[in-house]
Amino acid sequence: MTDTPSQRGASAAPDAGLAQAFLRPRAIALIGASGDPKKLTSRPHRFLRAAGYAGRILPINPGRDEVLGDKAYRRVADAPGPVDHAFIMVGARDVPDAIDQCVEAGVKVATLFSAGFAETGEAGAALQRDIVQRARDGGLRLLGPNCLGLINVSDAIPLTANAVVEQETLIRGPLSVVSQSGSMLGTLLTRAQARGLGFSKLVSVGNEADLAVGDIAGMLVDDADTGAILLFLETFRDADRLAAAARRAFDAGKPVLVYKLGRSAVGREIANSHTGAIVGADDVANAFFRDHGMIRVDTLEGLIEAPQLVRGHRPPANRQVGAISGTGGVAAMVVDRLGALGSRVVGPPEPLRARLREKGIDISAAPLTDIPMGGSEGGRYSAILSELLASDHCGAVVSVIGSSARTNPQVIVDRVLNASPLDGKPLAVFLGPKAEAGLALLQQHGVAAFNTPESCADAVHAYLSWHAPARRDAATTELPPAARELLPQLPAGALNERDAARLFAACGVPMAPNALLRAAGQRPPFAGPYAVKILSAAIPHKTDAGLVALNVSEDRLDGVVDDMLERAVRQFPGAAIDGVLAQPMVKGLAEVIVGFRRDHEVGPIVMLAMGGITAELGRSRSVRIAPVDLATAREMIDEVPELAVLKGWRNRPAGDSEALARAIRAMSLLANADGKTITEAEINPLIIMETDNGVHAVDSLAFIA
Amino acid sequence: MTDTPSQRGASAAPDAGLAQAFLRPRAIALIGASGDPKKLTSRPHRFLRAAGYAGRILPINPGRDEVLGDKAYRRVADAPGPVDHAFIMVGARDVPDAIDQCVEAGVKVATLFSAGFAETGEAGAALQRDIVQRARDGGLRLLGPNCLGLINVSDAIPLTANAVVEQETLIRGPLSVVSQSGSMLGTLLTRAQARGLGFSKLVSVGNEADLAVGDIAGMLVDDADTGAILLFLETFRDADRLAAAARRAFDAGKPVLVYKLGRSAVGREIANSHTGAIVGADDVANAFFRDHGMIRVDTLEGLIEAPQLVRGHRPPANRQVGAISGTGGVAAMVVDRLGALGSRVVGPPEPLRARLREKGIDISAAPLTDIPMGGSEGGRYSAILSELLASDHCGAVVSVIGSSARTNPQVIVDRVLNASPLDGKPLAVFLGPKAEAGLALLQQHGVAAFNTPESCADAVHAYLSWHAPARRDAATTELPPAARELLPQLPAGALNERDAARLFAACGVPMAPNALLRAAGQRPPFAGPYAVKILSAAIPHKTDAGLVALNVSEDRLDGVVDDMLERAVRQFPGAAIDGVLAQPMVKGLAEVIVGFRRDHEVGPIVMLAMGGITAELGRSRSVRIAPVDLATAREMIDEVPELAVLKGWRNRPAGDSEALARAIRAMSLLANADGKTITEAEINPLIIMETDNGVHAVDSLAFIA
Repeated sequence: MTDTPSQRGASAAPDAGLAQAFLRPRAIALIGASGDPKKLTSRPHRFLRAAGYAGRILPINPGRDEVLGDKAYRRVADAPGPVDHAFIMVGARDVPDAIDQCVEAGVKVATLFSAGFAETGEAGAALQRDIVQRARDGGLRLLGPNCLGLINVSDAIPLTANAVVEQETLIRGPLSVVSQSGSMLGTLLTRAQARGLGFSKLVSVGNEADLAVGDIAGMLVDDADTGAILLFLETFRDADRLAAAARRAFDAGKPVLVYKLGRSAVGREIANSHTGAIVGADDVANAFFRDHGMIRVDTLEGLIEAPQLVRGHRPPANRQVGAISGTGGVAAMVVDRLGALGSRVVGPPEPLRARLREKGIDISAAPLTDIPMGGSEGGRYSAILSELLASDHCGAVVSVIGSSARTNPQVIVDRVLNASPLDGKPLAVFLGPKAEAGLALLQQHGVAAFNTPESCADAVHAYLSWHAPARRDAATTELPPAARELLPQLPAGALNERDAARLFAACGVPMAPNALLRAAGQRPPFAGPYAVKILSAAIPHKTDAGLVALNVSEDRLDGVVDDMLERAVRQFPGAAIDGVLAQPMVKGLAEVIVGFRRDHEVGPIVMLAMGGITAELGRSRSVRIAPVDLATAREMIDEVPELAVLKGWRNRPAGDSEALARAIRAMSLLANADGKTITEAEINPLIIMETDNGVHAVDSLAFIA
Repeated sequence: MTDTPSQRGASAAPDAGLAQAFLRPRAIALIGASGDPKKLTSRPHRFLRAAGYAGRILPINPGRDEVLGDKAYRRVADAPGPVDHAFIMVGARDVPDAIDQCVEAGVKVATLFSAGFAETGEAGAALQRDIVQRARDGGLRLLGPNCLGLINVSDAIPLTANAVVEQETLIRGPLSVVSQSGSMLGTLLTRAQARGLGFSKLVSVGNEADLAVGDIAGMLVDDADTGAILLFLETFRDADRLAAAARRAFDAGKPVLVYKLGRSAVGREIANSHTGAIVGADDVANAFFRDHGMIRVDTLEGLIEAPQLVRGHRPPANRQVGAISGTGGVAAMVVDRLGALGSRVVGPPEPLRARLREKGIDISAAPLTDIPMGGSEGGRYSAILSELLASDHCGAVVSVIGSSARTNPQVIVDRVLNASPLDGKPLAVFLGPKAEAGLALLQQHGVAAFNTPESCADAVHAYLSWHAPARRDAATTELPPAARELLPQLPAGALNERDAARLFAACGVPMAPNALLRAAGQRPPFAGPYAVKILSAAIPHKTDAGLVALNVSEDRLDGVVDDMLERAVRQFPGAAIDGVLAQPMVKGLAEVIVGFRRDHEVGPIVMLAMGGITAELGRSRSVRIAPVDLATAREMIDEVPELAVLKGWRNRPAGDSEALARAIRAMSLLANADGKTITEAEINPLIIMETDNGVHAVDSLAFIA
């Protein structure tokens, strides 16, 4: 992983030759192809033939001269070249030879259906490292192993062993899928096609030993037949490449929609055991998606239904949503859930209502405009919907339709299509009753139609939460000169608290006054009572070790210092003890944790959390990819509900939010510590004083790689 | 509303004659019936005829001698009696006369399709009160107004104007629905029937001017054709009757499943404007459902799919869930969501795995047992599923099925049916691909099948959260004698803080030491520093008024008392000022709010919340119907995550949870303050000391009606 996201997104477009060889190969070697139609290993061949594949199919089988009517070859190099793409179906032990054959024959890319690699344990992981090295040395790219391969629907190239290809009539369409789970391809394909939604490419990436989600997504950005990219993720194995692809997709106007497992601890555990990956915290994943302009949905059907909602649109300028319905109770399910997700459902503003009154239509200011759409009311419905779509008081509109969606789908479609501008902002239509025909009709006319209140609210909320990729100004995200000068002087490994505090101070985070006492008898240059703690890089959990004392009066100081030094030496024999750090007891309006670390999945992040037990519970956190600017730091403060106290709560004074925002930004700049890699840094607590009185870092830790 | 839930559930079964007249009338008067088949007012007549209704249909229309071939009458009393049920379709202004006619003719119950009542504003509400009074005086019961009426599917009596009756072929089945939204009937019916799920009765209750959800649910408990009762609720208008019906349903083994709007503020606002009801906090609704043995679901399709899962089962003894699948990524969607909802997904215990090893089946201890169910693996699948269903390490099992659910539904059904004991605990089967046939087949064999990962997780989580109705022992929920003696001496209205504290102390909640100072110069009998505040029942928000001072040293006390008394008189001229209350500053491990109130919807509740801004944010609350026993009070403490500090957190001392539990129970007993009604009571803060050191109530308020 490269160091900073400011370097991401700069990646060039993927190799066009590779994309062609992978997505649209002109010649395919099927290594381990069988002529027995009952065998899995016969599938790709049969599928390609059945699809009318126009390129050359080259079965590779040392024991056969002919497979399913095509001439077979003992080795890839025996087949007439050039070969774009090899599909490898041999047993794991035979894969290294298959790779060598591909290298020998100058094959561009190989898809490894073969399993028995990293997903099975350490021996398999070693084998996987071996084949990757062979491929890399030979200039061959790999998809998989342990993957189902590619279903290229738009060009009719089903290069896969996935049975769904012969079970279903594939429908061409703008959706392309990249999935870390092979079984999800059939689930997504059958559900979408039942709605008349078609696909361009579906790719199962397996273990991602070489080509990973980001690489395939990158190819799809440049694929003319792909209109939207759907990702099913269990983990991140190539965050940088995925970030780059997502940013290119955003610029190309192709939305990237993501369903990612790992919302819960058990979900992360399953993803771990299932894929051999380490899966990180969910809010870190959210920070990643947001930073790179992706849209995250939270329901299976939402992933299928949302693309129609967002295609052709950019992230909303107004993150509120309007709602219209003729069926109050049914519509309330969508509106209630939108509210529970955190989206703001708003009623029409007075000027809009005034315009409608001029047309003889009187609607209330309630969040849900309740108006029948049937019979003579239809014109009124279309008029109101038009106003909602044209008004800038909301960034999206939900329309909920009752029984007429089932009994008279053409009428409801007409009512909706009579509104304009239909493409002004996303319009989500939820149909209350079972109404397959209505869903299909709306879909055919390019209107996003939803089958459940949950998927409808999910998709609308996901759209309203969509942000353009964060743009970082290199000049304003540089580490300050004082910190750049200090860094080379600091040792590698864990810093002692005073060094950590010096580093943060050099970044611009004010440290609470502190004095280093090497023995009893020394006095700090400030009055008590004091907070007193051991100073040693070797003792990270001072509180747990009982080596912190609070509210120490001036006359007790000597005794506490003596005792603490004595106990530290006894409890941690051999640890380098630098002395005792004394600080004045500071009481502010709130105490927070500001943290920085290089996440093993997504790279540098900055985190703001409430201190104490709230942090322990994992609640009330805000996370962003680092570095951040001041505006983003302010957003993070707004996302921690308890920090509402900083606005002045119940007659109490307001807190210095701006100083907190500056501190968050300053800590995030550690992402750009050139020359040294700061792996983790944390201030806990950072005490927030009243407005204009700043913040005080009380406890600091940092690790330098 | 009656006073206490201990009196609830005692209600007798509903009047069997009323239930017969309402659900299975032998003669129906259709008041305002039209012969024009295009008119809504012709529908009930046409529907009843088409359904082959065997009873007598009596059209009432002063302008016609005959309607749709049946003899018509000018007034109800002109028709041959007895008449069980009248369906009223006249304009709002003509409804009082229609009611009078029903009374005159001795009709038992009238359903008011007519609208224009409380849902339209105050004039309509007055009209509604008028018709209710007329009916009550005449011994007539009412459903509605503003309702769609009854669809009795099992007896083919569609006494409704709901068009769904002629649009759909109704399927008989065990589900009965009571809905506060008329439009939800069609939504639920069409979606369920598309899955082969049939109905017994569907009732739209409208404004619930007389008969309400609880009354209808009560009739359904006694209805032999009803196996499960589904409620769609926007608000509570008859909490006591609903509670009684739910408890009877529980005893009868008929699950009551609820979808209730109002999860979000905007949802509550819509319910308010839509139904004219005031909708309370969602956690209060949860407390109500839990107390009375109802099961709350959170998805539309979950409401339809959950009954099959829970029917025949009781609340789980073990609230963990096991999971098995052959399709990891797809299954992970269900498991991840279960985890996010708070359900614990657990792997198989060693003894279970050992039993399987004896059969040559080796499975891991991971939370998701990943095993193919196709081909030769089918027997293994059934064997593992049998063990999961028989084992007591979990209270429910989820099975997720991939492509075979679509391509070979009979095989997957066989695999599932081969497991036993199939009825040992709830089994939820989620089908990944679009698989209508598979869903229907499973359903036909009595297996709960789910169409989305979200509804599957929702229903399983709802089952795992199900509790038997709370049983209250009258002897242990009595108000203590000291409180019973004190109550008559207390004034009505807001109590001053000292009286409120005396009341709570009499209930058993220890008050922090306090001294009443009537003028400067008086000294408390304990040492400073002090918390000092004005004592006056007329000044409820002392902090906001600046009439609280903290950390007052002994030498500053006189000055603070003087100043506070002077300012109180100046700021609140005319208010009765009782003096100044001084308390020692107490510092504990945590500060909470313990509150009691009579909720306008569900009656007496007790609430525990973290103090400070956390409470303001509405987070970290636990609510129960009052009174509660000690075991329930302990559960409430466990439900406030921040109170994990009481267990001793990071080397800090543990807190006196038992004293807190006693305080919660004590406050909840205010529900049984006979003779006087305590409408609201609150301790804020209640300070929790270390183990064995109890709790201290610092600030108390109470209102007596």
